[in-house]
Amino acid sequence: MKKLINDAHVVVAESVEGFVQAHADLVKSSGNPEELFVSRAGGAVQGKVGLVSGGGSGHEPLHAGFVGKGMLDAAVPGPVFTSPTPDPILAATKAADGGAGVLHIVKNYTGDVLNFETAAELAEAEDILVKAIVVNDDVAVQDSLYTAGRRGVAGTVLVEKIAGAAAERGDDLDGVLAIATRVNDNVRSMGVALTACIVPHAGKPSFDLADDEIEIGIGIHGEPGRKRIKAVSADETTDLLLTPIVEDLGLSGGEKVVLFVNGMGGTPSSELYIVYRRARSQLEAKGVTVERSLVGNYITSLEMQGCSITLLRLDDELTELYDAPVDTPALRWGA
Amino acid sequence: MKKLINDAHVVVAESVEGFVQAHADLVKSSGNPEELFVSRAGGAVQGKVGLVSGGGSGHEPLHAGFVGKGMLDAAVPGPVFTSPTPDPILAATKAADGGAGVLHIVKNYTGDVLNFETAAELAEAEDILVKAIVVNDDVAVQDSLYTAGRRGVAGTVLVEKIAGAAAERGDDLDGVLAIATRVNDNVRSMGVALTACIVPHAGKPSFDLADDEIEIGIGIHGEPGRKRIKAVSADETTDLLLTPIVEDLGLSGGEKVVLFVNGMGGTPSSELYIVYRRARSQLEAKGVTVERSLVGNYITSLEMQGCSITLLRLDDELTELYDAPVDTPALRWGA
Repeated sequence: MKKLINDAHVVVAESVEGFVQAHADLVKSSGNPEELFVSRAGGAVQGKVGLVSGGGSGHEPLHAGFVGKGMLDAAVPGPVFTSPTPDPILAATKAADGGAGVLHIVKNYTGDVLNFETAAELAEAEDILVKAIVVNDDVAVQDSLYTAGRRGVAGTVLVEKIAGAAAERGDDLDGVLAIATRVNDNVRSMGVALTACIVPHAGKPSFDLADDEIEIGIGIHGEPGRKRIKAVSADETTDLLLTPIVEDLGLSGGEKVVLFVNGMGGTPSSELYIVYRRARSQLEAKGVTVERSLVGNYITSLEMQGCSITLLRLDDELTELYDAPVDTPALRWGA
Repeated sequence: MKKLINDAHVVVAESVEGFVQAHADLVKSSGNPEELFVSRAGGAVQGKVGLVSGGGSGHEPLHAGFVGKGMLDAAVPGPVFTSPTPDPILAATKAADGGAGVLHIVKNYTGDVLNFETAAELAEAEDILVKAIVVNDDVAVQDSLYTAGRRGVAGTVLVEKIAGAAAERGDDLDGVLAIATRVNDNVRSMGVALTACIVPHAGKPSFDLADDEIEIGIGIHGEPGRKRIKAVSADETTDLLLTPIVEDLGLSGGEKVVLFVNGMGGTPSSELYIVYRRARSQLEAKGVTVERSLVGNYITSLEMQGCSITLLRLDDELTELYDAPVDTPALRWGA
């Protein structure tokens, strides 16, 4: 294992320390290693619904890279690929509360769901109103290694962006939850891995993939997907991801979507655009309009090579919220 | 070799096609495969100095990702790791000319320098005034595989950003060249590779590195650096890059810098922030102020794992230009 790290045990702590130093105008850290979270530099916005997300680290820029105006109020980075405990989630929830309640945005993994639930109960005992959206956009598998039901993957980025815009414009907690739910109901994803990644404290690849094999339907922690096949062309690979998404979403001609091609961390951006090109062409052939596009590393699996495709069915309001201004460490010049 | 490509011969063409589709509000392609370039969707800005850069592909988002308001007017993507010929550079120069002349921003590689020179002569024969800045910020080696003199690497991003801002505020061609020269004179970089990358048409790693080795002073095409050593910690690796940069720049206490930690394409962003953290701490120990920070994949080597560190000595004017608004495919929400 070769990594630019000092010690597998302090990867998250040191990385978050560098991150908040580099973006001190936008974010700060709790500074407490037992209750580590990142929040907006200016603190909670009074009267605004607070948005808190979190989960295992290793998916950067998700979630801390999305803390800032128009998106999250706080993010809780757990150990690599491991859910944070309820304590830091509670601390982040309190820091994000501006008196209008807090929405938890949770990816559907058993550990995350349980720990966010516990934190929500503790917060409510302190008179903070908390609601939660559990994102489950991955069409690849019904249940998986760490999940009952579908996994939450790249759709989470769109939930955070669009719910963040709704909170910023002044929607109340029920309103922000309704928007987040609408995004989750209309977003689907599926991914492919060309290589595994190495979790620092494990020190070896999270799974084995032969030199000529790819894993279709991979999870963001390297969990098994639908099938392992011989590597095929980018266009064929794209079709294997796109078809189940389009079918599951029940997408038909005349509809409008966000086409989001996400890099898993180790994929050259040129390859992501080749996948984007094919997906767009296939969607257009069906009469679907690609209204907005997102291409890049937004939710990664350390240095894994591969990508995921996400489609979000748009309506006018979701489009407006998607377009609303955002200013976070990962989404500005100087990111 | 596993890559998300269809055919090694059309990687650049297909990738650029997807790129301009995804960012059609900002950029367009020449559409001519013999004279392929990317330029601002709205065409040349009348009365503004035009900025054109380019070079071998495989370093994305550099250069096409930086075409847009506040930065480049056109970018010329050559084949992977291979200079574009004079014809597309000439075509891009004509497209970028708003009547105030054009600045060529050229990384110091023999092929790029020659082909940009030829294109400049051809442009001048058509009455377009062209000047060039040759960026040579890499302190690792004096001459190298593809270079006489120092190589141009990540400092190029800062030249493009700051010269772009100078052009946008209305500086004339000599003024923009003077600013670009000031950036180049005050910027230094050095990189490290943990892994090699695979050029699509070669189909095999560009060099061999053992499982426990890293290459200090690597070039962005995998050219040899200063030395190959056993992998050491992130902090030690950072010091091996930072020390020669600080010495070469003659940096002393009380000065202000941009600290730019660039990912080579396959490095998790968490690792880049660990490197950033150490570099910042070392600079602060010397009394140097990290005035601005840039951390992420800005000039890559396909899927190579590793990073580079760049320091730019700042003065008030350079800081103001660094901060000026920018809106390009790689530097906005929806990148």
